[in-house]
Amino acid sequence: MPDEQPGAPRLDPAVAARLRRNADGLVPAIAQQYDTGEVLMLAWMDDEALRRTLATGRGTYWSRSRQSYWVKGETSGHTQRVHSVALDCDGDTLLLRVDQQGPACHTGDRTCFDAGDLPLAAQ
Amino acid sequence: MPDEQPGAPRLDPAVAARLRRNADGLVPAIAQQYDTGEVLMLAWMDDEALRRTLATGRGTYWSRSRQSYWVKGETSGHTQRVHSVALDCDGDTLLLRVDQQGPACHTGDRTCFDAGDLPLAAQ
Repeated sequence: MPDEQPGAPRLDPAVAARLRRNADGLVPAIAQQYDTGEVLMLAWMDDEALRRTLATGRGTYWSRSRQSYWVKGETSGHTQRVHSVALDCDGDTLLLRVDQQGPACHTGDRTCFDAGDLPLAAQ
Repeated sequence: MPDEQPGAPRLDPAVAARLRRNADGLVPAIAQQYDTGEVLMLAWMDDEALRRTLATGRGTYWSRSRQSYWVKGETSGHTQRVHSVALDCDGDTLLLRVDQQGPACHTGDRTCFDAGDLPLAAQ
């Protein structure tokens, strides 16, 4: 993650203290459509991505491939208005309930899980 | 992950080829209640945990803290019957739609996200 700038806003210390980050300083963030319950995607946040998300109400993530922040929909227009953010029981996963405009997936699918059912032997 | 035993069953190679694992050989797996849409928990799978889940229809994960496999509900009785398993667009996240008996969370909450809403400045 980028070095902090002096005087830059920081994530609420009470929230930061609850986060359990991986070795890269990241936690997975699940985005769920707030009204239909669809699981849309999973992306990653560091403290600053979470701070921006909480401050702006727009889903903001850390791109591991591009090593930069991205605001969902900034280029595609498929924005994510955040209704709530919950941290799980052990502080290592976030659940965002969002209002997703259009497809959440870069493939054009509504969710990132629409194309991939795996063969299940038993029910 | 444990060493493979010779002749042990292996994950379908067509599925294994689609998985993009982290440095520890794991992918995050989101468990969602199949009918209500509740996001219950996030846990981790390696190839063998996924193989067992697909073969048995019971949610089976890799415990990073205990370094062993665990079948959800094996000790608590709060089992997870798996209805479907989907791999996301880039192969690095699983979504399980399950029928969760009782609480999914070790705290006794229905989901692992019930206790932790974070303060959101903007809506």
